[in-house]
Amino acid sequence: MQIDILTLFPEMFEGVFNSSILKKAQEANAFNVNYINFRDYTENKHNKVDDYPYGGGAGMVLTPQPIFDAVEDLTKYTDRKPRIVLMCPQGEPHSQKKALEFSNEDHLVFICGHYEGYDERIRQNLVTDEISIGDYVLTGGELGAMVVIDSVVRLLPGVLGNELSAPEDSFSQGLLEHPHYTRPADFRGLKVPDVLLSGNHAKIDQWRKQESLKRTYERRKELLKDYPLSDKEIEWLKKL
Amino acid sequence: MQIDILTLFPEMFEGVFNSSILKKAQEANAFNVNYINFRDYTENKHNKVDDYPYGGGAGMVLTPQPIFDAVEDLTKYTDRKPRIVLMCPQGEPHSQKKALEFSNEDHLVFICGHYEGYDERIRQNLVTDEISIGDYVLTGGELGAMVVIDSVVRLLPGVLGNELSAPEDSFSQGLLEHPHYTRPADFRGLKVPDVLLSGNHAKIDQWRKQESLKRTYERRKELLKDYPLSDKEIEWLKKL
Repeated sequence: MQIDILTLFPEMFEGVFNSSILKKAQEANAFNVNYINFRDYTENKHNKVDDYPYGGGAGMVLTPQPIFDAVEDLTKYTDRKPRIVLMCPQGEPHSQKKALEFSNEDHLVFICGHYEGYDERIRQNLVTDEISIGDYVLTGGELGAMVVIDSVVRLLPGVLGNELSAPEDSFSQGLLEHPHYTRPADFRGLKVPDVLLSGNHAKIDQWRKQESLKRTYERRKELLKDYPLSDKEIEWLKKL
Repeated sequence: MQIDILTLFPEMFEGVFNSSILKKAQEANAFNVNYINFRDYTENKHNKVDDYPYGGGAGMVLTPQPIFDAVEDLTKYTDRKPRIVLMCPQGEPHSQKKALEFSNEDHLVFICGHYEGYDERIRQNLVTDEISIGDYVLTGGELGAMVVIDSVVRLLPGVLGNELSAPEDSFSQGLLEHPHYTRPADFRGLKVPDVLLSGNHAKIDQWRKQESLKRTYERRKELLKDYPLSDKEIEWLKKL
């Protein structure tokens, strides 16, 4: 997978992309990342990429020219148009489903604004996707792009060592994960539930399913709407 | 504000915390960040911080001892217990309201797991908050902690140069932002709406409010539930 990132702050990405799984995934050629500082494309004499908003108001707005030109330069020699993803608070909320969808693409381009808003013509005439990672305000799109890329890259074939890890994670199955315990069985008087030490795998499985359902019900009831409950699960829920 | 981050990958934070607003905010002493590699606290002979889950299953689980000890070491000499925030997919969804709440604290501690799950006793007996930045699976809690910290720090007094920027952002007011336009008025035939060039500020204000409402209605209808609609706004909505 080819990932291009348009940003005024390419140095922000270094620590994250040179550590851990994202580093290993690049070394294994699962993906290749390329940073484009779109300031390099501005035709403005003073190297500016933003300007005052028409109609007045606080804050600056990113002008269309440098971003259009940078994206067009990237896609000049490609047959298939890549997905062009604008990171912005007005976008579609990012989700595990979206991560899976993006993981099937060959080429993703991310556009990261910083402080400023985007000129609406970028939104309407250049990008294919607008994505928000959540309902909170960040300084720029860079952290959002890192979050989306991390969620996508870990789904690429061969990236996670243990092939079992991905599907068992929270959200892959639509419920929050059950509690985990490891050694010691007694930590300062805090004990591991007996069932987990029982060796009875049918019972352990049932306990985990019940705890997962219980946690989802208590913390994120709204997730249950999209989860296909079995008859047994409906029975358990009634007891809560 | 003092921010302590427990992580096995402190180098991930460098690029993000040494750029842009987060860098300036530290230089202005708005906050101070300290990284604790909790591997330094393990009593395990082989320096391990995780172990197999009781009851079997894929993946490893972070043991309680190093994390309990690291947090206790941090808070040994503090009178007021800090907020201790566990980054995890099962947590409360992060929000602008939560960012504001955290911005009023003197001391925040973030615990970032990586690949592994957390032993449940960490969740139940050590932390004050469990936070998730969204419904997607990430490799670790580090990116989540950066996201939460960015959203919090920009609300601290004096951090944003233009004091007007924060309250006008998306979500601060409960609706998605209206479209922005800047020069040129005509970019490759794509034009700025006439109203923004009119100089009529009452009209511009009304256009912006309508567009903001329209965008929220079209993209994130569920946000309107928590927004106090005026009579005029209800009238506009009916037309949509």
